[in-house]
Formats: sequence, structure tokens, C-alpha cells
Amino acid sequence: MLISQVIGTTVSTIKEPTLEGCKLLILRQTDVDGEPFGKPYVAVDTLDAGIGDLVLTAHGSSGRQTSLTQNRPVDAVIMAVIDHLSVLGEVTYRKE
Amino acid sequence: MLISQVIGTTVSTIKEPTLEGCKLLILRQTDVDGEPFGKPYVAVDTLDAGIGDLVLTAHGSSGRQTSLTQNRPVDAVIMAVIDHLSVLGEVTYRKE
Amino acid sequence: MLISQVIGTTVSTIKEPTLEGCKLLILRQTDVDGEPFGKPYVAVDTLDAGIGDLVLTAHGSSGRQTSLTQNRPVDAVIMAVIDHLSVLGEVTYRKE
Amino acid sequence: MLISQVIGTTVSTIKEPTLEGCKLLILRQTDVDGEPFGKPYVAVDTLDAGIGDLVLTAHGSSGRQTSLTQNRPVDAVIMAVIDHLSVLGEVTYRKE
Amino acid sequence: MLISQVIGTTVSTIKEPTLEGCKLLILRQTDVDGEPFGKPYVAVDTLDAGIGDLVLTAHGSSGRQTSLTQNRPVDAVIMAVIDHLSVLGEVTYRKE
Repeated sequence: MLISQVIGTTVSTIKEPTLEGCKLLILRQTDVDGEPFGKPYVAVDTLDAGIGDLVLTAHGSSGRQTSLTQNRPVDAVIMAVIDHLSVLGEVTYRKE
Repeated sequence: MLISQVIGTTVSTIKEPTLEGCKLLILRQTDVDGEPFGKPYVAVDTLDAGIGDLVLTAHGSSGRQTSLTQNRPVDAVIMAVIDHLSVLGEVTYRKE
Repeated sequence: MLISQVIGTTVSTIKEPTLEGCKLLILRQTDVDGEPFGKPYVAVDTLDAGIGDLVLTAHGSSGRQTSLTQNRPVDAVIMAVIDHLSVLGEVTYRKE
Repeated sequence: MLISQVIGTTVSTIKEPTLEGCKLLILRQTDVDGEPFGKPYVAVDTLDAGIGDLVLTAHGSSGRQTSLTQNRPVDAVIMAVIDHLSVLGEVTYRKE
Repeated sequence: MLISQVIGTTVSTIKEPTLEGCKLLILRQTDVDGEPFGKPYVAVDTLDAGIGDLVLTAHGSSGRQTSLTQNRPVDAVIMAVIDHLSVLGEVTYRKE
């Protein structure tokens, strides 16, 4: 899983019919302190995550192992909203 | 999913028999403002996307979760045409 | 799928028994004009592609969606030989 | 599989229901001498690995081939704790 | 598939029970002349490959398409030992 920050939203009228009702959010991977880096990617949100939240995303076929994403053409899903992260015993991120 | 721009087309006479009728487009990944970067890749188009459109592509086995791509040797599919993208509450891309 | 050029061949006596009869070619990814870049990789050829040909390769489990590669430990297959590529309405590559 | 070091822990209240009871650890890939490099990622721990341990992680659908991770939206699992690594006949890492 | 050189071995006492009896080797990807580059990774060996051998490795779910790796949490397998490689008609590597 990747540690990522939710940074935005996407709107699409023309899409695969099975995606109706899937919320597709824009994310960027972050470091353990929540600092984003790298290029944006898009994942399905099943947990009502908000802009700015740090989350974990599962990729590939693992992104389809939820009731909402099963058998759908999606390759990334938010599977947890992060409360806090600790590295070597020290808290590096805490949700406000 | 990757945010990408459709930039071109491919023509192949010799191909896997199951690919007959699959439209294969050339894309490049873009940033949230639609600026392309990186190397070209090819995805199946099931949505009649046009050159210049910003789209979302699903990769790996997720690219086969459409009626057109099921059981075919393809690893990327266009699953949505993007109308607009917003980052931190600001619109960064809007389809013309 | 990746746009790639066939650059070479591999010979292996010791291999997984199910690979008997699989032609394994060496490729390098190319740009839309057929210029190769990056490191070599190996894919199964089911289309009798020749050295120098530009082809499309499907990766991961999608590489096993052909009658020749099904249930075999291979993660890349040549699924089309490219006749020509066009970008923004201009031909960037044409097979000789 | 990747050689990685366990560096931290994650806590999430809001998560996919099927993840209840999954321990999610933060890791960084290492070289053969255990020196970490690159960006952090998160994997399920089924082996009670400790902070500082060198482990092997399996990714993608292979991360779901354990009794704990089966059918869950996780794409990486710790499948072995490393005792020692040898390169060209010389021990490069030994667990303390 | 990646062209890689076997460079070392791993020993693990604590591991997924289904991995009992799986030989896990350390590899580095190579160029067509057998020159290694990049970071080490680990693959299951089913072919009794030796240190220094050039091999082909299949990744992801394709790494589980052998009788030894089926249903196990492994994401890379050695599926061929390379005898020789040719690029543009010239031999670039030959096993000694």
C-alpha cells in the first residue's frame, strides 16, 4: 500500500457504465510525515475521505477486493484513512 | 488510475485474433492541469475518446474488467473521459 | 501496452517445462517514432515478429491471455505488430 | 520479492471492514547489507515482525496468498523475516 | 520477463508456512551483455540455478504459474536459465 494524500476530485460524464456511483479522487504519494511528492494518480474512495486526509491505497487487482470495486475497471482503492504514523517509535504524522 | 491525454492512434494488421475490433490509442500521462509528461503508452478505448481528450486509464488485470477487454491480452483501458479536475478546491482542468 | 522494438533472441535449455515451444524475444521500449530507450526486457512472441519490428506488448496477467501463454509463468506477450503510429494527426512511424 | 526493513506502524480507525485485525507496518526497501533507500510503503504483517527487522515482501495479487490477506484489499505482505543474506559467498547481513 | 543475474541467497526461519522448501535467491537485473544494474530483488528458484547464472524471471501473478509457486505468496520466479543472448544478430552473452 502507498501512503498518500487526497488532493482533489474528478468529474466524468462519459465513463464505463459499471463506474456509476464510484467516487474517484486525486491523490499524491507522501512521505511518513505527510509531505506529498511525485505525480498525481486517481483512486476509488469507499470511505468518504476528505481533501487533505492521509490515506492508504491498494493497487492492481487488490484495488478490486471491496464490495464497491469488485469486477470494475479500477486499479486503486482507498482502504484506510490514517490516524497516525510512527517511525522508530516517534509519531511522524497525526490527523488533526 | 492514471490521468492521461490521448495523443495518437496505432494500426496493426498482424495481431492477436481476439483484438479484432479493439481501438488502440496512444496516451501520455499528464499532471492535474493536463500537461503531458513521460513516455507514451497504449490503451484500449471503449468510450470513443478523441485526440486531445484527458482520460483515466486502468491498468493490469483491471484493464480487462470491461465487456470489450475481458479475456483479451490487453493491460490498459480508458474507463472515463474527464470533464474537469479540481485540486484543493480550485479547478485545474476543464474540457473545452 | 508498451510500444517496443524487437532487438534480439534468447536461448535456454534449462527452463520451466511449460515453456517448451515458447519463442522468447528481447525488446526495448520505444518512443512514438520507434526510437528505443531504457533497459531490455523479454516477451513471448506468438505472432512471428522479426528483429527490428515495432510491436505492442501486454504485461502482467494480461500477458497470459493468449492460447500460447495461458497458465504459463510468463509476464509479457507481443500482441500486435505495428504498421504505423500517428500522433496529433501526423504519422510518426511506418513499417518498411 | 523486495528486501525491506520494518521502520514503523500505522493506525487507522476508518478502514475497509475486512481489514479489522490486519497489522499494517511501514517499510523501506533495502540493499543486501540492510541499508534502506527509497520511499516508505505499507505491508500487512502476518509474522509478528519487529521494528528494525529485515523482511521479504510479496506484492500485488501475491500479497493476498496468505490465510490472513485472502480476498482483502491489500497489495503487499511480509512473507519472511530474514536471518541472513549472502552475496557471492559472503554474508552481507545477519540478524542480531 | 527480466534478464537478471543470480547474486546471492537468503535464509529465513520465520516465514509463511507455505514457503517451506522454496529456495529464495537474490538477483539483480542485467543488460543484454550480463552486466548487472539496479537494486537487488528476490525470486523463487525452481531450476537449481547457480550463483552467477543469467536467468529470466517472471513477475506478479505470473510468478505463481509453476507447480512449486502456485497459491503461494511469491511474486517472482526464475523460469529459464539463459544459455545465450543475441542482439541484432550478434551474440552478447554466452554461458561459460
